[in-house]
Amino acid sequence: MKDLPISPLAPDAFPDLPNVAGMQASATRVGFYAGTRNDLMTVIFPHGASVAGALTRSATRSADVDWCAAQLPKGRARALVVNAGNSNAFTGPAGVAKNAATVKQTCALVGCAPHEVFLAATGVIGVPVAPNRVADTLPQAIAALAAPDWEALARAFSTTDTFPKGAGACLDLDGVEVRIAGLAKGSGMIAPNMATMLAFVFTDADIAPSVLQSLVSAHVETTFNAITVDSDTSTSDTLLVFATGANGASPITTQDDPRLGAFSEALRQVLLDLALQVVRDGEGAQKLIQVTVEGAHSDASARAIAFAIANSPLVKTAIAGEDANWGRVVMAVGKAGEPIAVDNMAVRFGGEWTARHGGAVDYDVAQVDAHMKGQEIDILVNVGLGNGRAIVWTCDLTHGYIKINGDYRS
Amino acid sequence: MKDLPISPLAPDAFPDLPNVAGMQASATRVGFYAGTRNDLMTVIFPHGASVAGALTRSATRSADVDWCAAQLPKGRARALVVNAGNSNAFTGPAGVAKNAATVKQTCALVGCAPHEVFLAATGVIGVPVAPNRVADTLPQAIAALAAPDWEALARAFSTTDTFPKGAGACLDLDGVEVRIAGLAKGSGMIAPNMATMLAFVFTDADIAPSVLQSLVSAHVETTFNAITVDSDTSTSDTLLVFATGANGASPITTQDDPRLGAFSEALRQVLLDLALQVVRDGEGAQKLIQVTVEGAHSDASARAIAFAIANSPLVKTAIAGEDANWGRVVMAVGKAGEPIAVDNMAVRFGGEWTARHGGAVDYDVAQVDAHMKGQEIDILVNVGLGNGRAIVWTCDLTHGYIKINGDYRS
Repeated sequence: MKDLPISPLAPDAFPDLPNVAGMQASATRVGFYAGTRNDLMTVIFPHGASVAGALTRSATRSADVDWCAAQLPKGRARALVVNAGNSNAFTGPAGVAKNAATVKQTCALVGCAPHEVFLAATGVIGVPVAPNRVADTLPQAIAALAAPDWEALARAFSTTDTFPKGAGACLDLDGVEVRIAGLAKGSGMIAPNMATMLAFVFTDADIAPSVLQSLVSAHVETTFNAITVDSDTSTSDTLLVFATGANGASPITTQDDPRLGAFSEALRQVLLDLALQVVRDGEGAQKLIQVTVEGAHSDASARAIAFAIANSPLVKTAIAGEDANWGRVVMAVGKAGEPIAVDNMAVRFGGEWTARHGGAVDYDVAQVDAHMKGQEIDILVNVGLGNGRAIVWTCDLTHGYIKINGDYRS
Repeated sequence: MKDLPISPLAPDAFPDLPNVAGMQASATRVGFYAGTRNDLMTVIFPHGASVAGALTRSATRSADVDWCAAQLPKGRARALVVNAGNSNAFTGPAGVAKNAATVKQTCALVGCAPHEVFLAATGVIGVPVAPNRVADTLPQAIAALAAPDWEALARAFSTTDTFPKGAGACLDLDGVEVRIAGLAKGSGMIAPNMATMLAFVFTDADIAPSVLQSLVSAHVETTFNAITVDSDTSTSDTLLVFATGANGASPITTQDDPRLGAFSEALRQVLLDLALQVVRDGEGAQKLIQVTVEGAHSDASARAIAFAIANSPLVKTAIAGEDANWGRVVMAVGKAGEPIAVDNMAVRFGGEWTARHGGAVDYDVAQVDAHMKGQEIDILVNVGLGNGRAIVWTCDLTHGYIKINGDYRS
């Protein structure tokens, strides 16, 4: 991680995550960074795992994302290799060669097929690495495998993050315990699809790949695809969910398995927790902002309006200034290009309506001011038309963002 | 204007604009601002004028924009009344009542029909004003009418602008001189459609409204709709072009009039000059950035990619840091969602290619560094696919933007 102050919105401590049976992991060092920090996470599933995921829709996505996109439909994993410090994006044939060498070495060391190896990378764009750079360090990474040290793993693939991100859950499904542990990184270049973001979730439940994929596809929309820091979409965004099936329960192979509901909700909560931690670590963030849009023509329309608000620099700077500037919210609604009933519009900050029926109303200024001074800001807009609803999250836009991304010479 | 330092990108002086026959104007004071600054521009066309325009597409546009939209198809103007300090947006029935009173008073004083009165307003959103607030000051504004003092007029409707904006042209059409003078305001909430921006252009040419409208509609796309400061679209954007016909030449009534070509190009140059001045006054701007995209599937696709680059906070902060960070440009291209040939992509800063054929290339670092230290930055991206091309302009994202928009308590 960079030498930045820890975000004021960070959790007090890294959470206590459960051990997930059926996997081993290590955090080691390739050397993409000066100093001694680790920059490689290696995970092995000795008996394999189901895998599902969601990947960036960027047209300039990395070679690693291309690789995962090709293997995901096969749905089985034996290994995951993730490096920080170089994104392997916009690296052309050199990037493909690096991945080929990494996969080949992994297969040799683990004894698996190429399509069972998953790759991810984050860091600088457009700088090719030597083909064997990662492969040559894999023997050491494999030798270091052990039960997961979650915090050390999260740190190994972080970049400008100011704190390591983890979330987990334990639940009982028909008398068998299921454990879920997830890790994420990301703090800038965060916008759907998806954040600039890597996230890996592991569970010892036994779930068929197609069932797992349907859960991930559904939940990503209301979690990682509902956050934005700066509207910039990464070339490397990768979410992978692995299910080792090592908890001893019978497999979940259909959508109508009665155990799926509780697992699905637990998975969603882990994904949401990780996604919100990414926003809490948004570059320069001082406040976490929840934007709810109601009364839209459709949920998709509500979502478009919510993102227009969440990505508006004028809204985000106003909140940095602790100003309930609902006029800027109205502006942002207007620019979304979605149908609204302007004379029926209303805007609420915290619990107080600042505008209703398409115009200003008197409100409790002291109460709104107190809300704006807090670390968690709640904006609700009703656009007065229908029943469409969406929630997205962002952070404020502060001098810290400029400092991190623009003050090269300070 | 606010008490802000003048933009380093400002012209040395307000230009010397020609007198336009057939109009009188005054800059007076309603009192929307504390102190003594003027906040009202009133223009009268004693013998009428053709009028054409372009208006914001915001769904929360102001009552003034609604009014202009209704009158523009009739194509004739006798008066223009513009105030700064209150945008009359999101003001519901009160905003409509204020406009009705202003129009009624103007008609009484000037002796014209309501549809010949044009209105514009800029400033705070969502604060209704008393219905007669502007109307009551109009007798004084009419009494002060004189030949235009262009700089005083530009200052009268400015808000956070750090310098008044004007541009003009004189040309000879078949032995008759034609004069064009234009004024603009805007420095934040600037994005197409259109900028947060008011612009008014006056000419003594005699041009039928439909012909004038076709020119304005064409040229706005490559001028005011090709600029962005912060991706935020205003509720008040208004461009109006008035042609008094007082220069004595025969009217231009058809698209194939041989005089139209030269006039059209002169008008486009005035609009472009004004639009670039708005970017040069972008809140916190230290650098003017021209983004050219070539090789796209279509011109529209090139434009979408160019705006993805121009609106990217990570690109804009990199340029503030004088860093030719072409990796962030690649990221922005990727997020545009437009077709590209990634292995054929190339990025140029100033005259130096920093990436070609989908990857990094060696380049003259000293030359690129020198370019990045300049006030005008030129980025060209070829996406390697077709013949689509577009140019847009923006400015860098600096601490100044945060300071102006977020440091309420500093």
